[in-house]
Amino acid sequence: MRDLKSELLDKRFLQPFASKAVAPPPVWLMRQAGRYLPEYRQVRAEAGSFLDLCYTPDLAAEVTLQPIRRFGFDAAILFSDILVVPDALGQSVRFAEGEGPRLDPIKSVAGLARLALSNTNDKFALVCETVQRLSEALPRETALIGFCGAPWTVATYMAEGKGSSDQAAARGWAYRDPAGFQQLIDILTETSIVYLTGQIEAGANAIQIFDSWAGSLAENEFARWVIAPTARIVRAIRERFPAVPIIGFPRGAAASLQTYIDGTDVDGVSCDTSCPLSVMQTIARTGKAVQGNLDPLLLVTGGDALDQRVDTICETMAGLPFVFNLGHGIVPETPPENVARLVARVRKAS
Amino acid sequence: MRDLKSELLDKRFLQPFASKAVAPPPVWLMRQAGRYLPEYRQVRAEAGSFLDLCYTPDLAAEVTLQPIRRFGFDAAILFSDILVVPDALGQSVRFAEGEGPRLDPIKSVAGLARLALSNTNDKFALVCETVQRLSEALPRETALIGFCGAPWTVATYMAEGKGSSDQAAARGWAYRDPAGFQQLIDILTETSIVYLTGQIEAGANAIQIFDSWAGSLAENEFARWVIAPTARIVRAIRERFPAVPIIGFPRGAAASLQTYIDGTDVDGVSCDTSCPLSVMQTIARTGKAVQGNLDPLLLVTGGDALDQRVDTICETMAGLPFVFNLGHGIVPETPPENVARLVARVRKAS
Repeated sequence: MRDLKSELLDKRFLQPFASKAVAPPPVWLMRQAGRYLPEYRQVRAEAGSFLDLCYTPDLAAEVTLQPIRRFGFDAAILFSDILVVPDALGQSVRFAEGEGPRLDPIKSVAGLARLALSNTNDKFALVCETVQRLSEALPRETALIGFCGAPWTVATYMAEGKGSSDQAAARGWAYRDPAGFQQLIDILTETSIVYLTGQIEAGANAIQIFDSWAGSLAENEFARWVIAPTARIVRAIRERFPAVPIIGFPRGAAASLQTYIDGTDVDGVSCDTSCPLSVMQTIARTGKAVQGNLDPLLLVTGGDALDQRVDTICETMAGLPFVFNLGHGIVPETPPENVARLVARVRKAS
Repeated sequence: MRDLKSELLDKRFLQPFASKAVAPPPVWLMRQAGRYLPEYRQVRAEAGSFLDLCYTPDLAAEVTLQPIRRFGFDAAILFSDILVVPDALGQSVRFAEGEGPRLDPIKSVAGLARLALSNTNDKFALVCETVQRLSEALPRETALIGFCGAPWTVATYMAEGKGSSDQAAARGWAYRDPAGFQQLIDILTETSIVYLTGQIEAGANAIQIFDSWAGSLAENEFARWVIAPTARIVRAIRERFPAVPIIGFPRGAAASLQTYIDGTDVDGVSCDTSCPLSVMQTIARTGKAVQGNLDPLLLVTGGDALDQRVDTICETMAGLPFVFNLGHGIVPETPPENVARLVARVRKAS
């Protein structure tokens, strides 16, 4: 039996999610395990495909640990990909080098016959084995974050067959046949609950739900395709694991952030780079934890401009339940020494 | 001497920009002259390149008028492209079929030597001739909207050499060398003032500034690269033409819309599809005109779902200074009969 209360006390990352301010703020960075690290590139080169790396617990655990060893972040995030879910369901996913993901698109309800929750066992088991190894290997003070893509965002890739700038395939399907699209969202919602449950049982201390394309939806569709399925996931996970914080990241939806929080009841939110600090302050003052929101491109540039922005963010969020993070993933061009500089600056900021 | 006061009385489109509610609301649609119309495709096929069409007053005026003839919109928008400005400045722009724009990128201050305001005369004159013809050809009750891209958004294409999902080339340049990037923004700001001045002198009744990539910037950069240059354009145009409304469209920046309005002093804003109606209401209640924000993909689907959303938007914005529009441009797959249905519905909505 896990002692979640003792975990909360040991891991400073978790305290903002109990509405507590921590000084200096906990810090981790989205995509902190990635191509900007030479030791990651070495493992990646040995791993075969990108998904092979996700499905090989030894290697996935190793790349998750690399940034913890280098920078001592307060949280590690499971190395995986949001497209593990459609891949495990039976819609095969390939990653062409430099091209992003490719799937055989599912453009209408007829294509859903390809998918089955019962398909997911083996692949989810491999991811959960990674989580298990990490929970044993990580320092006691380091939290382990599990994650999934939100149903809406995963559905956009499944419908388009790749990344897109406007998510037109999924948005169009949802307008043409909302009942059919609801079936896809329901499959993804139920599968995500199973997947996250497995990750928590294997040792994840917190969960983040990435909704990268939440910002492309009109208000009613945001309520139906973003808020409702996320709320269902939150309810199901909280019922079984009331002490595990759930973080939402509805990217590009800063104007709807309070609506999202009210509707989903997440314990905290990640904020993207464009979110004004005043919005982050307002939310944190309600007791919800806020993560964010340094521009990853400023981390590439570094120097005084980086220091100043880090200070501004930390000063603005001081005394509030806050976790320092980027507003989007680290880019491959990032000099690792700038990451070290960032972490030192955040920790001096108290 | 133009009698701007009489124009205001004749053209219902202009009244919301004097803080007046109009019932039914004026309606026009972004990219209303475009590939969804067979008569547009015919002219386009005869015109050579896309920019040739923009630079041929006969044809550019013809495609601007086509949707007015079909649907009787309350405003026509000059058929042109935001990349006319870099093209005229000397950074040659090509449009490859189905690939979007291509430019030889300018990635640092050294590349600015290629650009000169004195280069722009001939090409701007062709655009202004189109405006002149339109102002003579349009019905007296139809307003003519001129436009330009905002300096920030135009700069993103100039730095990247094409469209991009993250505007990384411009954002990175702006972090690495803010003083150099400021020079590019200054060139674009001054050129835009000259360009818009020419359009108004030729007969444009209102101006829209399209900032499609405003949503990718962090707060401080939004202030420097979006708000400041737009404010400078607004001041310069208003000083010469105090009766000509200036509309801003900072796409993807709904959470910063009030900051944008306060900082730029535009007469009205366009709101993208993801902007909550409550945000639009709040702004319109301050007396600023608001345009928006039907999802263009719902216009493709049509039917009852379209009718219901049109009604909801019109009912929510009733009694406020409001112009019905899309939240983004019409897509080529749009059935023209759905546009007719939309216009009839808006006009019945009072």
